[in-house]
Amino acid sequence: MTRTEPARGMRDFLPEDVRRRSFVIGVIAGVYEQYGFEPLETPAAENIETLLGKYGEEGNRLIFKILKRGEHEASGQADLALRYDLTVPLARVMAEHRAALPRVFMRYQIQPVWRADRPARGRFREFYQCDVDTVGPTAPVVEAELCAAVSEALAALGFKEFEIRLNHRGLLTAILESAGVPNAAHASALVALDKLDRLGVEGVSKELVERGVEEHSVARLLDLFGTPPSADSLDAAARFVGDHAVGTSALENLRAIVTLSGNTAAAGRIRFDPSLARGLSYYTGAIMEITVPDLAGSLGGGGRYDNLIGMFAGQTLPACGFSLGLERILVVMGERGMFPPTLAMEPADVLVSMLRGDEAAGALLVASVLRRSGLRVMVYPDADKIGKQIKYASARCIPCVAILGEDEILRGDVTLKYLASGHQETVTLDRAGAAVRESVREARG
Amino acid sequence: MTRTEPARGMRDFLPEDVRRRSFVIGVIAGVYEQYGFEPLETPAAENIETLLGKYGEEGNRLIFKILKRGEHEASGQADLALRYDLTVPLARVMAEHRAALPRVFMRYQIQPVWRADRPARGRFREFYQCDVDTVGPTAPVVEAELCAAVSEALAALGFKEFEIRLNHRGLLTAILESAGVPNAAHASALVALDKLDRLGVEGVSKELVERGVEEHSVARLLDLFGTPPSADSLDAAARFVGDHAVGTSALENLRAIVTLSGNTAAAGRIRFDPSLARGLSYYTGAIMEITVPDLAGSLGGGGRYDNLIGMFAGQTLPACGFSLGLERILVVMGERGMFPPTLAMEPADVLVSMLRGDEAAGALLVASVLRRSGLRVMVYPDADKIGKQIKYASARCIPCVAILGEDEILRGDVTLKYLASGHQETVTLDRAGAAVRESVREARG
Repeated sequence: MTRTEPARGMRDFLPEDVRRRSFVIGVIAGVYEQYGFEPLETPAAENIETLLGKYGEEGNRLIFKILKRGEHEASGQADLALRYDLTVPLARVMAEHRAALPRVFMRYQIQPVWRADRPARGRFREFYQCDVDTVGPTAPVVEAELCAAVSEALAALGFKEFEIRLNHRGLLTAILESAGVPNAAHASALVALDKLDRLGVEGVSKELVERGVEEHSVARLLDLFGTPPSADSLDAAARFVGDHAVGTSALENLRAIVTLSGNTAAAGRIRFDPSLARGLSYYTGAIMEITVPDLAGSLGGGGRYDNLIGMFAGQTLPACGFSLGLERILVVMGERGMFPPTLAMEPADVLVSMLRGDEAAGALLVASVLRRSGLRVMVYPDADKIGKQIKYASARCIPCVAILGEDEILRGDVTLKYLASGHQETVTLDRAGAAVRESVREARG
Repeated sequence: MTRTEPARGMRDFLPEDVRRRSFVIGVIAGVYEQYGFEPLETPAAENIETLLGKYGEEGNRLIFKILKRGEHEASGQADLALRYDLTVPLARVMAEHRAALPRVFMRYQIQPVWRADRPARGRFREFYQCDVDTVGPTAPVVEAELCAAVSEALAALGFKEFEIRLNHRGLLTAILESAGVPNAAHASALVALDKLDRLGVEGVSKELVERGVEEHSVARLLDLFGTPPSADSLDAAARFVGDHAVGTSALENLRAIVTLSGNTAAAGRIRFDPSLARGLSYYTGAIMEITVPDLAGSLGGGGRYDNLIGMFAGQTLPACGFSLGLERILVVMGERGMFPPTLAMEPADVLVSMLRGDEAAGALLVASVLRRSGLRVMVYPDADKIGKQIKYASARCIPCVAILGEDEILRGDVTLKYLASGHQETVTLDRAGAAVRESVREARG
């Protein structure tokens, strides 16, 4: 006997899981399409050199690698690797299919990615990302529309309180320079600043010193970051960076994004937060992260990455994207009871029962007729006691059982039993579809 | 610069591809649901021992294997493997989640599988299967409903002429035994008989002799198989196997399936073909294959496999399934122009244009309003000459461009230009959604 559990950190999705997942994916995809984003799909496996070196040291370690095949299998070498995110494949696609794609390419992609991370609560080795990206333009309309699209998607799923934290890589650079942190220490300082939520001002202050940032720079930084973000934060940051060119242009960009968002579904959602850093190294401009109250971590994030595609295309191609994490959205929706009660979870509207084996042909005929009226119909495949079949339907929440007795078959009738009310009616076969639909719809409200 | 092509035998799906694929998957899933099948999804990667030894020698060779990670990576050993079909994962799921699943479990699963086959026209290393299986009962209603479901799915996609070839593993055994072929030679003889389509009676006759089947057995076999399948084939097979117990019960099963199918969407589609063998070794009962005229090979196939799940569950659990191959369906539909002309392929219904950067906020407002009326709206993100933006919309088949001039913005108006007719109208913003919908719907017919 073989082991029966799925691979570590991966999950089987039983029907109820798939229905919930498909519902959420459908809503998100629908909103993305409303914003003019088009669907893209890429293979689960990429040539290994496509992925290596794109995600930093940790990424290289967490990539699932696929063994060469045939005579090369014994070499123990890998030539393929599983998709690690949806951004690098997009960059590759932009280079490979440039001629077939429009100058402004807005795509969404909702597919699984794989990371050999240590599994933990809510952290899996196979999980879905729901990405939107715009490739081509650099105008702040792009960022505003991305924020609007993910805001509208979350609102459509029933999220009421969420916030998009917004910052800019250029501003972070300007702030660090203005505080006198040498360029070589920027990356390290950002890692420390990113922990402000968890460690507080004192903790971060200590860590900055440990990371070799000088005391006077630490003091200046915490002057700025120690103040909770507010409507004045942009002005405070502006005062901080003074006439630093990169900083000034970053602030102008951020102000444009905030202003534009006032006219979109992201209105009132965006909060400038100078301490937001985002881990990925490929960001070059605005960065965003979406949070909900009472949930550690984020539901998604993104930013502008104007240089990544150039690694594949051989020419710079600006881009900006936002990614929603499906698994966390599902966890929150499950915990907070956010799935619509009308989401059909039962396997069928009608169970066609069968008392004797020689009624099977009749049962299939009844099923055909009911399906033609748009109903989802399961045929109980074995002849069995009617009580047992009703029990099966009831356990599976199928609202109606069609009963074919000898009398009914001879008369061309069918008896319909509605399990919620116990009500039962005998109708002619050509009336059956309409009868079930009325009653089932009524019962569902 | 990195390579930009996808991995060998795998494909990028650009928006038009994804839309076609999603359309076909949606139709198939919808029909499967109408038959009471429920969705299931399993991980892309399985523990390697789950897959090894389930698909025969060739299968083992074609499985993509995933290298162990961390300190074990250097060992060159694999502990995971990519899903090779959807049947073995179902068998594992039945064993793992038995308590959570109903006694009669009808599931569909539409997911990619991976095989390291040599790529060829229409043969890929990543491809989708659309499976339906019923686990639990052994009644012929199961086979009849499976044939009905795939028939209805193909019909819903617009396939008019297709045929389900039907045979039975038990009947094949009985025929070979009745012809005097020793049991040890059955598998080999079936491989030869399976080639009747390609090699003809003489070729197969020769191959059977080469495979060690005795002359008198070959002659008897070709007596039966040399006659093209017809309405009398079942009777001919019955005469051939006489009172062979397994053969008689197989024939009874086949007759029941054919009779029951007369009342379903598979009516008139089923043709008994005693030469159908099907490659996979795990089949135990009825086997099916679906063919369309002028297409070599099949669109899908399936059969009963009553012992496979027992390899995982430790107890026999009968099952029967049918699998449609998505890629071949797409190829045929593409070649024969079967995609509905109403399938929306354009990225948006309206392009909101922008002549000056300071009109961006206005453009986003117009987009928000149009989206609220259900339209798909793309905002052209850069200020640009109107001619260029209209050209962009035209190239992308976006039927309408919303133009915001200074005058319009001041008055709260928007000008709508319909590209097909060249017609143009200026309306108030609150009328714009309805105006576009009327005109675009009209133009689409």
